[in-house]
Amino acid sequence: MNRKIRVGIIGGTAFTSKELIKILLNHPQVEMAWLTSTTQVGEKLSSVFPQWTKSLGDWEILKRLEEVKDLPVEVVFSCLPHAHSANSCANFVGKAKIIDLSADFRLKSPYTYLKYYGHEHPYSHLLSEAVFGLADYYPQQIQKANIVGNPGCYPTSILLPLLPFIEKGWVQFPVIADSKSGVSGAGRTPTSTTHYNNANEAVAPYKGGRSHRHVSEIDEQMQRLGGEAARIIFTPHLMPMDRGIESTLYIRTTEPVSQKSAEDLLDTHYGNSFFVKRVDHYPSTKDVTFTNRCHIKVESLPEENLLILYSVIDNLIKGASGQAVQNMNLMLGLPAETGFGI
Amino acid sequence: MNRKIRVGIIGGTAFTSKELIKILLNHPQVEMAWLTSTTQVGEKLSSVFPQWTKSLGDWEILKRLEEVKDLPVEVVFSCLPHAHSANSCANFVGKAKIIDLSADFRLKSPYTYLKYYGHEHPYSHLLSEAVFGLADYYPQQIQKANIVGNPGCYPTSILLPLLPFIEKGWVQFPVIADSKSGVSGAGRTPTSTTHYNNANEAVAPYKGGRSHRHVSEIDEQMQRLGGEAARIIFTPHLMPMDRGIESTLYIRTTEPVSQKSAEDLLDTHYGNSFFVKRVDHYPSTKDVTFTNRCHIKVESLPEENLLILYSVIDNLIKGASGQAVQNMNLMLGLPAETGFGI
Amino acid sequence: MNRKIRVGIIGGTAFTSKELIKILLNHPQVEMAWLTSTTQVGEKLSSVFPQWTKSLGDWEILKRLEEVKDLPVEVVFSCLPHAHSANSCANFVGKAKIIDLSADFRLKSPYTYLKYYGHEHPYSHLLSEAVFGLADYYPQQIQKANIVGNPGCYPTSILLPLLPFIEKGWVQFPVIADSKSGVSGAGRTPTSTTHYNNANEAVAPYKGGRSHRHVSEIDEQMQRLGGEAARIIFTPHLMPMDRGIESTLYIRTTEPVSQKSAEDLLDTHYGNSFFVKRVDHYPSTKDVTFTNRCHIKVESLPEENLLILYSVIDNLIKGASGQAVQNMNLMLGLPAETGFGI
Amino acid sequence: MNRKIRVGIIGGTAFTSKELIKILLNHPQVEMAWLTSTTQVGEKLSSVFPQWTKSLGDWEILKRLEEVKDLPVEVVFSCLPHAHSANSCANFVGKAKIIDLSADFRLKSPYTYLKYYGHEHPYSHLLSEAVFGLADYYPQQIQKANIVGNPGCYPTSILLPLLPFIEKGWVQFPVIADSKSGVSGAGRTPTSTTHYNNANEAVAPYKGGRSHRHVSEIDEQMQRLGGEAARIIFTPHLMPMDRGIESTLYIRTTEPVSQKSAEDLLDTHYGNSFFVKRVDHYPSTKDVTFTNRCHIKVESLPEENLLILYSVIDNLIKGASGQAVQNMNLMLGLPAETGFGI
Repeated sequence: MNRKIRVGIIGGTAFTSKELIKILLNHPQVEMAWLTSTTQVGEKLSSVFPQWTKSLGDWEILKRLEEVKDLPVEVVFSCLPHAHSANSCANFVGKAKIIDLSADFRLKSPYTYLKYYGHEHPYSHLLSEAVFGLADYYPQQIQKANIVGNPGCYPTSILLPLLPFIEKGWVQFPVIADSKSGVSGAGRTPTSTTHYNNANEAVAPYKGGRSHRHVSEIDEQMQRLGGEAARIIFTPHLMPMDRGIESTLYIRTTEPVSQKSAEDLLDTHYGNSFFVKRVDHYPSTKDVTFTNRCHIKVESLPEENLLILYSVIDNLIKGASGQAVQNMNLMLGLPAETGFGI
Repeated sequence: MNRKIRVGIIGGTAFTSKELIKILLNHPQVEMAWLTSTTQVGEKLSSVFPQWTKSLGDWEILKRLEEVKDLPVEVVFSCLPHAHSANSCANFVGKAKIIDLSADFRLKSPYTYLKYYGHEHPYSHLLSEAVFGLADYYPQQIQKANIVGNPGCYPTSILLPLLPFIEKGWVQFPVIADSKSGVSGAGRTPTSTTHYNNANEAVAPYKGGRSHRHVSEIDEQMQRLGGEAARIIFTPHLMPMDRGIESTLYIRTTEPVSQKSAEDLLDTHYGNSFFVKRVDHYPSTKDVTFTNRCHIKVESLPEENLLILYSVIDNLIKGASGQAVQNMNLMLGLPAETGFGI
Repeated sequence: MNRKIRVGIIGGTAFTSKELIKILLNHPQVEMAWLTSTTQVGEKLSSVFPQWTKSLGDWEILKRLEEVKDLPVEVVFSCLPHAHSANSCANFVGKAKIIDLSADFRLKSPYTYLKYYGHEHPYSHLLSEAVFGLADYYPQQIQKANIVGNPGCYPTSILLPLLPFIEKGWVQFPVIADSKSGVSGAGRTPTSTTHYNNANEAVAPYKGGRSHRHVSEIDEQMQRLGGEAARIIFTPHLMPMDRGIESTLYIRTTEPVSQKSAEDLLDTHYGNSFFVKRVDHYPSTKDVTFTNRCHIKVESLPEENLLILYSVIDNLIKGASGQAVQNMNLMLGLPAETGFGI
Repeated sequence: MNRKIRVGIIGGTAFTSKELIKILLNHPQVEMAWLTSTTQVGEKLSSVFPQWTKSLGDWEILKRLEEVKDLPVEVVFSCLPHAHSANSCANFVGKAKIIDLSADFRLKSPYTYLKYYGHEHPYSHLLSEAVFGLADYYPQQIQKANIVGNPGCYPTSILLPLLPFIEKGWVQFPVIADSKSGVSGAGRTPTSTTHYNNANEAVAPYKGGRSHRHVSEIDEQMQRLGGEAARIIFTPHLMPMDRGIESTLYIRTTEPVSQKSAEDLLDTHYGNSFFVKRVDHYPSTKDVTFTNRCHIKVESLPEENLLILYSVIDNLIKGASGQAVQNMNLMLGLPAETGFGI
């Protein structure tokens, strides 16, 4: 396949959009068609993000969605916030493959959406058609999808290590996930939380227990494999660093699980994966930042009927834009790793 | 009481010693007598730590232990590593109040010491006499003590929020503690772990489950109030910051505990404390760094029979030198907060 | 002098105010009278800055200036931005000693003020009466002052090392000052510049040459001792850290100056200073953060007729609140170091 | 040209080596042949740098130089320290293109080498043949070279903006360069300087004036275009960040230079460059980290006969490994940007 795939991006100035464009620019089979913005229409991408110093072509001028929505593209990514995103994506249903980085197509249940996002889903009839884009776990479903809800960063870091154990039937619920994220997870808007002097030299939890919105998509995925009782206790913590997520999962098991059995299970699931890897050492977020990889370590305490899982990802790449491109590759029938380098 | 108390410090160049001296220099009733060192004898404190630019008096010249051990002092602090510390402290038994910042006087059981520290305790007959210096929980015992084993940084951050709930009988075991510490917890020796380029922009777990040495003192304290089954699952994580510890504790309860009951319990224990405070917001390590305070938030999920406790301290102050001075105050009959400022 | 001095603070929620209050709370002869705010009236200080967990007294409730301006105080500090500050301070002229941390009383020339701050000085008749509060250089003038314009952070870091050399007649103009500041210099307002992900892992110059407002007060002070030709070339740079300023000054000399002569000159000026110290090693901002000290190193290249001066301060303390309290001490006839600890 | 170029790397575990391998692995025309190490022979690259999780082939096993020195390769990179590097590179003279990242082939004068590096150059007869690899300034010479001395990180950041102005005859000497570098410039060895708690939250100068070794190569390049009097005053500063260098240059001019003339000069030199770019805004190191780019801003103060130049690079890429690959591309007749992405 040598033909170039034409790609449009809705919401071209978010952190996730910047990372997405960086990956796509080096993808051998992608041709950028357009970027949209609501706040910086008419500006060039290279003036928004000063690392691009060369003219990138006409497409780098940020446009209104209305100007571009009838131009033919094969793939549309949306980097808008929830609700805004579904409204914009709706223009492309049936015309292009859609990969939505917001929460709008992650859930199956409109009721759960309403409960966690505070408003009715604007296009709930599309939810059944959308596929949850956990690319390393559901590649077959994604290959056939027309709409992919790209998972949240925390859910990616939690579900990749956890789902094999739920599928195996070894997990008692609830599972406890203690997650730590760099500040870019909070987005580009300057706030008191993202002010350097508040975030630097500081570690703090927020939205603990079951109050963070990502609980909704983690629960739904856990229940798919683990039944109704499956659910997460999830506490995110803000870390003084740009990017990266570490999640530590504490799982009471239904029976004692040996260290070897636990390792074998992960190797069975991910032994052939280009991006997900079981490691023997304790993983550091720094091993995977600026990559689309996920490193997982498992530690079994069979005398406690306890498993501890550690996973690390880059929240902006594996937790957002990298996984989105991986999903695009799958939807187009390309090898998952196309465009990612070694 | 206006007389000055003469104080000696063994191991005067550790991170903890530096913080200890900073506090003691502003303590209205302390007079420094001597500092010892094994590696920098003859140097001045102000050449080791360049923030002190004035001559501090003769005592600031680092001496061999042999030179000073017969000089009369009322209080001796030891900042040496374990084993070395007990050997040095032994010189002062019966002559001065001893506050040991190493692990040597934290445990009651010589067997546990052997198991976790890999060698016989050199002065095991002193263990029964030593008091565990968790200053805000055991002030009465500490007031009568001659030897105090100053708690580790992680144990302080975990036991202060946890013990009231164990005492109340609400806790099922094991308890899960997920802790996050700044790099100063790893000490002053340059290693691969403390190299800036490895620690910066990185979050990583280490010594998970029940493998960290601090498990021994946490378990022993938990068992004191909670019986034999009491034990911790404890995973420390290294954070890209100088100082501060945040611990998030996940507790399955023996019965549903309301948010109000949980808050009331903490308020009962710490409502009059100068240093420990229950807060309603999620606490940040930055709220307490450079202080001797501990902030605690509790979050109850009664429908899950679950309590989540969050605590933050400064590992070098509340987790080491500040608590040591607080212990000294108690042992001398002074108000606990003497010398700490507001 | 055992009587307490009653102090009011205008603009009680700025970064500089927070540091000011921390120092004053431990000052043995100060009694807080009131704090004002325009945006958080009625809130408690301890809810704005969560490190204060105890009730601090009635004064901690933020008030409108109108409510407090007739209450008798002996000292008023203002932490408001320029123009707002002079307007507020004007209420206290003749009633209390005034220490203004804004730029409003730093300059003698209303014309320079207009040029650099873009509006007429609202109380230009007070400028001749105000004293430039470079506390370690002009202690005698400050002792007699009723209004002190507390110097900017960059000017403090530049003028302390530089003025002795100008006074001596060794300096050719312009002098080059390359300064590096932590992010707290940019204030508490969340902006794109202070967003963690922009400031972290980044070093960048801004407002170079002669465009930064601090050029005005540096020039004026240089000219006082060095004549009309005296002027600075000043380039500030933003550093990825909370606090601290390092300034490196490059001075062409009128004649070759030996290393020893340069060191002797600094020792003559600052040998007896409690806060300013010449050091032999290259100074680090970390040696002085959280203190009111300034460390200076001089390096002479006589074969180049060149002196290089290095100075480090804490921008929030020596560069703002600490120097303000030092000025208060001087104005009240107290030792300069009262309240600062060792 | 579709044939793969076989490449060997001497000293495969340095920071610069890691970056070099990352770039080469994604270079479309490079095939890795071998890596050497003195301390980790027999280990796999992927165990030294955990971000590589896949088997990379036999070449990733670190070998002794003796094992590989007779295997045919077309290009050899050396990442060893000076002296060790020349000794190792000597094995490949006449057999392969050599790109040395140490200081051993940067200087023409063996006398200067002796003066700055403290020992005789082991292969001084090769110095005349070696080309200084400032890739964006001397592309023609590099294309014909067999041995390239890859410039130091600081010299790259200083010479790229400076040389056009010297060549034009506008520069009075000495020039002042105030540089700021991330900690990776200090290498992978754990030391007191690279200890997190010393480097974090700290800015400090070191080796000021004319004492840093990089003065030698900066001087030599300046003199090549500017004559004997040309020389630098250079003060490096350590910054609390992983990577990136910002250099601010202060240049007294021989005549007033307008802003436009200064900008035009840079545009003439670098207008067609893929990697070097004049920008209008103040540049941040973060605009160029993880890239091979250099951004330059010029600010003219003609009334002062003064130019200020600001440049930013990634010290590990443009200041080391990226420029090395750019040099390889030039030496092999490939476009300079081959393998770098957009």
